[in-house]
Amino acid sequence: MRLRLTPREDSFYELFSDSANNLVTASRLLSELISDDSEREAIAEKLRVCEHVGDEHTHVIMRRLNETFITPFDREDIYRLAGTLDDVMDAMEAAADLVVLYQIKQLPRDVVQQVAVLERAAEITAEAMPRLRSMRDLTEYWIEINRLENQADQIYRRLLAHLFSGEYDSLSVLKLKDVIEQLEEAADAFERVANTIESIAVKES
Amino acid sequence: MRLRLTPREDSFYELFSDSANNLVTASRLLSELISDDSEREAIAEKLRVCEHVGDEHTHVIMRRLNETFITPFDREDIYRLAGTLDDVMDAMEAAADLVVLYQIKQLPRDVVQQVAVLERAAEITAEAMPRLRSMRDLTEYWIEINRLENQADQIYRRLLAHLFSGEYDSLSVLKLKDVIEQLEEAADAFERVANTIESIAVKES
Amino acid sequence: MRLRLTPREDSFYELFSDSANNLVTASRLLSELISDDSEREAIAEKLRVCEHVGDEHTHVIMRRLNETFITPFDREDIYRLAGTLDDVMDAMEAAADLVVLYQIKQLPRDVVQQVAVLERAAEITAEAMPRLRSMRDLTEYWIEINRLENQADQIYRRLLAHLFSGEYDSLSVLKLKDVIEQLEEAADAFERVANTIESIAVKES
Repeated sequence: MRLRLTPREDSFYELFSDSANNLVTASRLLSELISDDSEREAIAEKLRVCEHVGDEHTHVIMRRLNETFITPFDREDIYRLAGTLDDVMDAMEAAADLVVLYQIKQLPRDVVQQVAVLERAAEITAEAMPRLRSMRDLTEYWIEINRLENQADQIYRRLLAHLFSGEYDSLSVLKLKDVIEQLEEAADAFERVANTIESIAVKES
Repeated sequence: MRLRLTPREDSFYELFSDSANNLVTASRLLSELISDDSEREAIAEKLRVCEHVGDEHTHVIMRRLNETFITPFDREDIYRLAGTLDDVMDAMEAAADLVVLYQIKQLPRDVVQQVAVLERAAEITAEAMPRLRSMRDLTEYWIEINRLENQADQIYRRLLAHLFSGEYDSLSVLKLKDVIEQLEEAADAFERVANTIESIAVKES
Repeated sequence: MRLRLTPREDSFYELFSDSANNLVTASRLLSELISDDSEREAIAEKLRVCEHVGDEHTHVIMRRLNETFITPFDREDIYRLAGTLDDVMDAMEAAADLVVLYQIKQLPRDVVQQVAVLERAAEITAEAMPRLRSMRDLTEYWIEINRLENQADQIYRRLLAHLFSGEYDSLSVLKLKDVIEQLEEAADAFERVANTIESIAVKES
């Protein structure tokens, strides 16, 4: 019996790693998209593919979760972890999509910084995933995610103030605010991923 | 003992069917409301009644859930299913409410299509509910909900682009965007209903 | 064994009381902030401190939850109660933050009423928390929270209509709408707190 359960347990770790690596790919595409205004449609299309891959991961995790009697950690935690990873992807894809849909030519300069923070958050999340197995050395990851979330928050607030500084007409404010809010939502979702992982780790300790 | 549990189990199926049928009524009212600009206040009032009925269903489901020791499926799934059905209703009622509150005279033509998708989603959701008992023949329902959600998404994106095309002043954009976003939220919530039902079905299989 | 579990159980009641009392403090600061436009930055800073204290409470509750084998009520309910109390705080802090960030000079008069409802909701929530232990005399609290939520909803809708009445330019509408929506979100979150407590009480009865 144990023999049959072990490979299933393992597959959760791998699926979460795949999901997080997919976020790294997506965050890099997002970074390209905002710095290059000639290839936006093509890059947004690639991000859409990433999002479908992510949906597929989530779907497999949920299916496996429902089929597996014994799971490596709490069912609700697996459910939450898959859900929050999915939230990050959705927010990043939505931001890219809106840039194209609204035909935004010029993004405020701080958006580059906002996306750089997401890229870094994706990288350290992907690096942390394999450590779920041993539940060791996760403290640095939480500290860094928290630092990044605070940084994202400051950039976001600065961007909001900038939008209303008088430089933009109200339709531009509406468009840019939508994009910036999706990027902030992605940063928040990265923090929820970290909180879920912390909650798992505490139970295991 | 079994005898006393059975009627309780049954009541969940009936309550979910009632909830979904209530969404059919609400989606038809919404369709009336957007095509007829003379009776809007009266129709919005009827939708408000629907929403109260829906709240009552949710409340009864939650109460029953908390009182029942053995449930026909996972407690968390029942909780989620009731919650997502409630989300659909809230979004539809909010959309109707905003049309009246903002005194919107003319809605963009594609909003009719957006609401037609919701009407269809409500119908197939209500048709699927009785099949929760046997857990059979649900595949068509998922495929169709996914198709509808993709369609809703395309209409939504086309509407967003249209709003910013220059035809509308910024206050009108703000008002219409609120309505259109609530309708999109309703379509998303229908998909979450279908995902929850899928999750229940996988566990039962 | 029982002896060792009792102090842990007790600590949940105390932590929830602390959390709710912190919301009372925050709602009073919010009330000060909107009536006094000279001290806004200083008051918003105090609210930020409140929010950090709230985060700390949530964190301690989650940690205790994950470490405790037997909890006074359902794990998921404890999780939800901590989460919804946190939602109230986040929404109130965000509203205050936006007033300062957007440098809003004059708020519509009804915002005072909107915040007064939040203050009252915070007070009765804090009063109800110690009664979680006996699960008695909670009915009045639910009735009053529901009444307050309906009142908040009416004020919110009146404010929305007022924003679009023609008195405000579109950038002001955008700013004020953000603030008003956060306050409405706080009222909604108070209702979710009450619903969670009701769900706990039904199970215990």
